[in-house]
Amino acid sequence: MSTQDFRSERIGFLQQSEIRAMTRECNRLGGINLGQGVCPLPSPPELLEAAAQAVREDLSTYSRFDGVDELRHAVARKLKRYNKIDVDPETELVTTIGSAGAFICALQGLFNPGDEIIVFEPFYGYHVNAIRVAGCVPKVITMKAPDWSFDPEDLERLRTDRTRAVLVNTPGNPSGKVFSRDELGVIADFCKTHDLLGITDEIYEYLVYDGQEHVSLATLPGMFERTITMSGFSKTFAITGWRLGYVAAPAHLAGPMGLVNDLFYICAPTPLQHGLARALEVIGDDYFDDIRKKYKANRDLFCDALVQAGLTPHVPEGSYYILTDVSRFRLNDARASAMHILEKAGVASVAGSAFFATDGGRNLVRFCVAQPREVVEQAAERIQVFR
Amino acid sequence: MSTQDFRSERIGFLQQSEIRAMTRECNRLGGINLGQGVCPLPSPPELLEAAAQAVREDLSTYSRFDGVDELRHAVARKLKRYNKIDVDPETELVTTIGSAGAFICALQGLFNPGDEIIVFEPFYGYHVNAIRVAGCVPKVITMKAPDWSFDPEDLERLRTDRTRAVLVNTPGNPSGKVFSRDELGVIADFCKTHDLLGITDEIYEYLVYDGQEHVSLATLPGMFERTITMSGFSKTFAITGWRLGYVAAPAHLAGPMGLVNDLFYICAPTPLQHGLARALEVIGDDYFDDIRKKYKANRDLFCDALVQAGLTPHVPEGSYYILTDVSRFRLNDARASAMHILEKAGVASVAGSAFFATDGGRNLVRFCVAQPREVVEQAAERIQVFR
Repeated sequence: MSTQDFRSERIGFLQQSEIRAMTRECNRLGGINLGQGVCPLPSPPELLEAAAQAVREDLSTYSRFDGVDELRHAVARKLKRYNKIDVDPETELVTTIGSAGAFICALQGLFNPGDEIIVFEPFYGYHVNAIRVAGCVPKVITMKAPDWSFDPEDLERLRTDRTRAVLVNTPGNPSGKVFSRDELGVIADFCKTHDLLGITDEIYEYLVYDGQEHVSLATLPGMFERTITMSGFSKTFAITGWRLGYVAAPAHLAGPMGLVNDLFYICAPTPLQHGLARALEVIGDDYFDDIRKKYKANRDLFCDALVQAGLTPHVPEGSYYILTDVSRFRLNDARASAMHILEKAGVASVAGSAFFATDGGRNLVRFCVAQPREVVEQAAERIQVFR
Repeated sequence: MSTQDFRSERIGFLQQSEIRAMTRECNRLGGINLGQGVCPLPSPPELLEAAAQAVREDLSTYSRFDGVDELRHAVARKLKRYNKIDVDPETELVTTIGSAGAFICALQGLFNPGDEIIVFEPFYGYHVNAIRVAGCVPKVITMKAPDWSFDPEDLERLRTDRTRAVLVNTPGNPSGKVFSRDELGVIADFCKTHDLLGITDEIYEYLVYDGQEHVSLATLPGMFERTITMSGFSKTFAITGWRLGYVAAPAHLAGPMGLVNDLFYICAPTPLQHGLARALEVIGDDYFDDIRKKYKANRDLFCDALVQAGLTPHVPEGSYYILTDVSRFRLNDARASAMHILEKAGVASVAGSAFFATDGGRNLVRFCVAQPREVVEQAAERIQVFR
């Protein structure tokens, strides 16, 4: 047998995601899994029926690399209506294998090894890993609790000759932060002044609470031409396993991303593309209002339970994650804290350290409340063991 | 607007695939498209019904990065039965986004920039492009018409200190070559002698004719531990748009590939995974015999028609492609020849030059006969314009 180490250098640092490891541990202990954002909620029946019908119709062959016409046009209409972004579905939109696929296309198609991309901490670990696998360098700007505000001067401080882009995840995972129009304005000015790209992950765009407004960076003056807008339908329709996302960008950016999509992915799953396109025609605004209300109710329920249990949630303005301060356990180690909660209360979370380059996460864990109401209620009860 | 060129260096050489360009031209001229291997044939009804049912059951959330249990176990049984490869479905198998996704995982997970991979010419263009985007170097060994044999000494001649693997596509696209056990033995010895990996793309494994036998490189003595076996269900079940493939390899190779799959793809589309797993339980050997017969009949029909029309097909032993010598047109330019055929006969093909690094393809075009019988009949008739 070969004695060579066959793992490539570009993934030398990669490990099986901590989130997945926690899921295994949770299954072993029979816990309630508020770790991974699996989102096991009912999907809209109209969507399931439309996709089942498309499968039955044997719409099974490759689509164009950028997706079937009907879906690109439906997404363009959605972008115009909800995000206020005007895109040409023929040249400025690529249907991708989830928003994860969109990010890989952006990184591989537009960035070179050594290029630096500014990311906000706490960050989504996948973002940082994907940046590094592409040979690029994540430069981390720290957002400060409790409101996850950032110092604009930190952006300038991080900038070098190799800085190429700023990545914004709004609403954010794991912080739940919803970037305000003013904050995005600061980022936009920074990008325009230094000729940088903006990259946004807006996968939680429909989940904003307490009167917050979801603003897309691409809508700020002069930003469309330099912004890559990524999103998808995994969270909105609870179809994380369907792998349907998209990236919108001006043609000079969408073109290279489309080439990577063609080579790495060929196309997104076609019958599911057709089903989604048809469902987008019939699913009304009430659906989005409804999930927003349901997720808000889950958030409120679990945040209240955490407070009652003597823990300190950072109540999120958006998304379905709740970063929670657990310094009360005096463990100063997020993984140990998460294991402590799993063992004592039977509720799995994710160690906050997974979202930090600094030690800012050592007393944080992340709960995901994208679960049926009764599961969140049960977890809320279990967590009272710490009262 | 930015004046920077935002296309990454790694894709600087990439262009929209010539195959797709020909499809557009064919649509414009209303031709019969025997260019792209779209495979618009009926999929097995059991498969469509099982997948529609899985969609309706809302099996919509992420699966494990390596696929749902049922599918991994079903594929392991298929590998044992058809390919004679024994794999542990827990550690030696990753469900991927098509076999294209499998190859990206192999390249990104196991190879470093500068690594050399030997490929057989004529080659599948995607293979070479994916190798180059990973920063690796394709080294081309030429197979000689009419039987696409190769000189074992050429393998030695191509080898350098950076050689890391040999890629075998059997049955081959575009040649239709089915590598014999002896030929694979030569490749196996070469890999073992020089501590190289074998990579096989066996996506056309069920389409072998004239008593040929499909042999998997991994079954040769001492080869499992150094072979990456890639395949999928796109061609077998005419579901090119479902994006379901897999890679089988020993754990020390499957592990790194799984990490890339997790990061780049998350998982293959889950409801379709479930549908396929269930269908694999009920689809019998008669299905595979049946498609083999149908494709063979298409091959025979169209090869005969080509001969009658005064063109010279390289009758393939496998797959559903027919490389055809068109030197009779005296154009010495494959693209011009393909356009000539499209304009005069209304049949689209792909320029042979797309499959060659040398000028060996300048008088070849590739026809794909993965089409309903009546379409192939119509194309066969149209091509008689050259009689």
